[in-house]
Amino acid sequence: MKINVKPIILVFVQLLLFAEIFGQKPDVQRINPTNWWVGMKNPNLQILLYGKDIASHKISLQPYAGVRIKKVNKVENANYLFVDLEITKTAKAGKLSFTLGTGANTTKIDYELRTRTARPQALTQADVIYLIMPDRFSNGDESNDRFDDMIDNNADRKNPWLRHGGDLQGIINHLDYFQELGVTSLWLTPVIENNQPITNEGGSMRSAYHGYGFTDHYNVDQRLGGNDTYKKMIDAAHEKGIKVVQDAVYNHVGINHWFLRDMPSKDWLNQWDTYTNTSYKDQPLFDIHASNYDKRVTSDGWFVPFLPDLNQKNPFVANFLIQHALWTIEYFNIDAWRIDTYIYNDMEFMNKCNKAILDEHPNMLIFGESAVGTVVSQSYFTKNNYNIPFKCNLPSSCDFQVHHAINAALNEKFGWNEGVNRLYQVIAQDMVYQNPERLVPFVENHDSDRFFSVIGEDFNKYKMGLTWLYTLRGIPQMYYGTEILMKNFKNPTDAEVRKDFPGGWKDDKENKFEAAGRNEKENEAFEWNKKLLNYRKTSEAITIGKMMQFLPVDGIYVYFRYTDKQRVMVISNSNTAEKEVQTQHFAEILKNAQSAKNVMTDEVISDIKSIKVPAMTALVLEINN
Amino acid sequence: MKINVKPIILVFVQLLLFAEIFGQKPDVQRINPTNWWVGMKNPNLQILLYGKDIASHKISLQPYAGVRIKKVNKVENANYLFVDLEITKTAKAGKLSFTLGTGANTTKIDYELRTRTARPQALTQADVIYLIMPDRFSNGDESNDRFDDMIDNNADRKNPWLRHGGDLQGIINHLDYFQELGVTSLWLTPVIENNQPITNEGGSMRSAYHGYGFTDHYNVDQRLGGNDTYKKMIDAAHEKGIKVVQDAVYNHVGINHWFLRDMPSKDWLNQWDTYTNTSYKDQPLFDIHASNYDKRVTSDGWFVPFLPDLNQKNPFVANFLIQHALWTIEYFNIDAWRIDTYIYNDMEFMNKCNKAILDEHPNMLIFGESAVGTVVSQSYFTKNNYNIPFKCNLPSSCDFQVHHAINAALNEKFGWNEGVNRLYQVIAQDMVYQNPERLVPFVENHDSDRFFSVIGEDFNKYKMGLTWLYTLRGIPQMYYGTEILMKNFKNPTDAEVRKDFPGGWKDDKENKFEAAGRNEKENEAFEWNKKLLNYRKTSEAITIGKMMQFLPVDGIYVYFRYTDKQRVMVISNSNTAEKEVQTQHFAEILKNAQSAKNVMTDEVISDIKSIKVPAMTALVLEINN
Repeated sequence: MKINVKPIILVFVQLLLFAEIFGQKPDVQRINPTNWWVGMKNPNLQILLYGKDIASHKISLQPYAGVRIKKVNKVENANYLFVDLEITKTAKAGKLSFTLGTGANTTKIDYELRTRTARPQALTQADVIYLIMPDRFSNGDESNDRFDDMIDNNADRKNPWLRHGGDLQGIINHLDYFQELGVTSLWLTPVIENNQPITNEGGSMRSAYHGYGFTDHYNVDQRLGGNDTYKKMIDAAHEKGIKVVQDAVYNHVGINHWFLRDMPSKDWLNQWDTYTNTSYKDQPLFDIHASNYDKRVTSDGWFVPFLPDLNQKNPFVANFLIQHALWTIEYFNIDAWRIDTYIYNDMEFMNKCNKAILDEHPNMLIFGESAVGTVVSQSYFTKNNYNIPFKCNLPSSCDFQVHHAINAALNEKFGWNEGVNRLYQVIAQDMVYQNPERLVPFVENHDSDRFFSVIGEDFNKYKMGLTWLYTLRGIPQMYYGTEILMKNFKNPTDAEVRKDFPGGWKDDKENKFEAAGRNEKENEAFEWNKKLLNYRKTSEAITIGKMMQFLPVDGIYVYFRYTDKQRVMVISNSNTAEKEVQTQHFAEILKNAQSAKNVMTDEVISDIKSIKVPAMTALVLEINN
Repeated sequence: MKINVKPIILVFVQLLLFAEIFGQKPDVQRINPTNWWVGMKNPNLQILLYGKDIASHKISLQPYAGVRIKKVNKVENANYLFVDLEITKTAKAGKLSFTLGTGANTTKIDYELRTRTARPQALTQADVIYLIMPDRFSNGDESNDRFDDMIDNNADRKNPWLRHGGDLQGIINHLDYFQELGVTSLWLTPVIENNQPITNEGGSMRSAYHGYGFTDHYNVDQRLGGNDTYKKMIDAAHEKGIKVVQDAVYNHVGINHWFLRDMPSKDWLNQWDTYTNTSYKDQPLFDIHASNYDKRVTSDGWFVPFLPDLNQKNPFVANFLIQHALWTIEYFNIDAWRIDTYIYNDMEFMNKCNKAILDEHPNMLIFGESAVGTVVSQSYFTKNNYNIPFKCNLPSSCDFQVHHAINAALNEKFGWNEGVNRLYQVIAQDMVYQNPERLVPFVENHDSDRFFSVIGEDFNKYKMGLTWLYTLRGIPQMYYGTEILMKNFKNPTDAEVRKDFPGGWKDDKENKFEAAGRNEKENEAFEWNKKLLNYRKTSEAITIGKMMQFLPVDGIYVYFRYTDKQRVMVISNSNTAEKEVQTQHFAEILKNAQSAKNVMTDEVISDIKSIKVPAMTALVLEINN
């Protein structure tokens, strides 16, 4: 077990309770953000200072070229100061020196302004995102499994609610695996400290291994390896050409967050007379007939009792969250940004926050989790083509509609609106989005049943569904284990779909990171994914091309991805018998093409006038020019 | 049986086949439009002249102040001339005199320019539309049941495919019935001549009693009573304060239409190498990824083999259809305009056509039949809030989404997306429409299963569904017989849901137009509809008010219609047990209201803090101010 060493300014807040204030010297327990940069497009910075009675002290800044204090803000709680700085373009990197207090009883505070070095790389259709729950992927450093100074000081792989010990070093150890598989970016469920208790809420166990209850924004959880290992992981990933997506949570924090134990002001949280949960309903937010009551419940109701809902209308809360986002991207060199429970945030705040990131990083892929059931709703919560008062500026969204459609398509008989028509009809509504090609479709994630189980462990359906995922418009997202047929339903607990990756722990009997550890079917799946994902990388039709889809007929769904130079045709036969597909109706895109190559078998089809497609199979054909 | 007398210019075209052209005098068989008006906003008129070799003759206009021939257009077929006139603002009503031919061999043609007298009345939320299939409603004039000079010269109430003899006089005879019931407008399935054969298409009988296959645009079918009776019916309806909606069909005509037997040009119709039916699919029209092939099949494919698809891109076809619409409104004094199979028309043509009507009648309700399955699609085909290149200018649409939602809501158990949530969720997407309050919701029409059968003949569900229909935003549409519990499924034929209204024929044993002819349940239904429809008329909250809806909870769905002066609350309990609804969450609209009146029972609820709602019941409460 490791001893946890933190910078003095981050001394654990509970200590305050026991600490006596002996001298008159102002006490500074925390400074957030922990540092900043020169050369940011936005010259403004609001520093939070936390310490006993800190607001009773005067603060001043030793002269520093290009930097000045604009305003010092006090709030209800005298233990907080919010200092507004202006950092002009001429300011150079270095150390600011603040003085808190007067005369002999002063405290000096150094604050670092760094030179910007982060170079985020945009995620595009050329990318494939691989979603990992770090605690359940691989334990690369057993020394960080448990810490006595954390509330949950346990780790037990046999208990679905406890931490299993997976960490960032475990991810570093498998970068070659991702590269071989052909994914180009990693999205980790949140890595930030979740010093949360394990609670039993009316018989339903609640834990924090998933990472969605932050308790200190500026520390990566030490059980995952802390800030330094996260930085190391990102640098190592970048060296292998793999990008990193950060999972951001603005809506709520862990109930044990340090600032909740001594709140800056009552309105730091969305408060209710009696506990009020969010309705989890999206409709009141865009319904022109909605009541204010329902709007408020959706936005300001709490996600769960142990994840208090931040009041993003409070400008100090808003600044805190926005600056943390900017800090994280800059500090760790994050490439893309996924936003948790997007719809429960305050939408005006979200626009402000997205703008702040995009002002600094105009091409960054920022995508929200809007777990909704309609195209209208999903598009409302991203950049859309609606002429309505609220203009969402979020560049992209998890594509839950494609998720629902693929899962349903594979389990239904073809019908007017059923089977492959589900998928066709979702894609057919893309006009509502400004950038449908930036959406992030998926077949499974950490909150859904495992894809392989949903489709009845049918390997043909598996390949067909993933063929769609990897070749449709958008930036496909897979979930760790998709490639080795990991299965299960969420029932009885979410942990069922968050099983440890076999081979991620030293004592695992099987190591499915390697061919030798995978059984025949798993190897077939792995190799199939590897082949298509690596082909995908090289295909300009898929990575920068447009899409053209044809009306499904008799269970046959045909679409193309294409540029001037390359055409990739995907013919899906959702029937239980082989079909011969006549291609004359596709003449506008096939033109005079005579032949094609089957991308998965390298077989040449010398005459594409009619193409035999086996039952429940999607052929991926590169049309010969 | 009546002898059919038509103006000489409308001599039945078959006669041509037997006619010898003796003299040199130009032969004029038809002139369309059959007359026009001075004072139209659009000064242009294109007159179609039809006659043997008519294009070989010169046409001139005797001087007429404010009127001139702008251009004479010839087409492929020399039997047609299209004469472009300009009728300026200064032109007075009177008779134009054209001369066709030269020297001694000339034909004079009179053409009437009338003074405009039509005063269409806008349909708004204050209206309720009652849809009638005239052939199946009431036979008011037995003398027009059969005509020997019509292809289908039969009428037989025992045969679902044949005409049953219902007519416009039958509607005139029941204007008091509509008034008593409380409907404010009648929509008749098309009344225009359908001189179509009864055909047997591969075992499926096709007939024309429904009226959707026009054979002469300028004649109301004589079996319904002809132009004069239609005019008489509309005048009589207007006198009783009942408006009339015309059913327009632009997409196709009957295969026996006079101009198809001697087509002006090959491109008068959408032609295909081999017969091609429309796919009936809406998606290719708005899908940004759609193929041109699929777009063309949807738009230009034929609706059925015996309803040829007009080529609306042909400007002569377009003018013919647009002018016929304007002529009809003007000639008969039509109040509103329903457009059949909206999505299969050419959308550029439709915009031009809608604009032409709206230029003359800016407040006219024009609504399309877009029988589609999604809000996105339905809104694409009406005035919407999309920032997309195609701007649909259609003011309104049949609200198929509310239709689907109400029918499903009543048959499903309450769930996250099920039961009353269906209806709530459809209404919650209204932001996509520019004018959701002009939509035309319905629970049944001539193409659907009968509502009472869909809901398992459950009278509580019937009342709940109709309460929604009559109190939601929009202009509700009922279908003849809704009020007397007419039932049936479309299986085996559409005629099952188009049964004769009992009492509409002299020899009917039961007359359900009168209380004495209705059984107890039917009277209960009739009285219930009458009470709510007549209350509706007087309620400003419903007829001009806004809507506020609350998230359904535990199967309870609550919404309000309201103005500053009146609040109507609709509480629906979709459960199978009584519920007591606490009203504190509705405070923003209830404010300090203490009591309410049950609109259907006139009972006063003295304390509305909590309201008991019986199982499967929607209460309509007028809140006391």
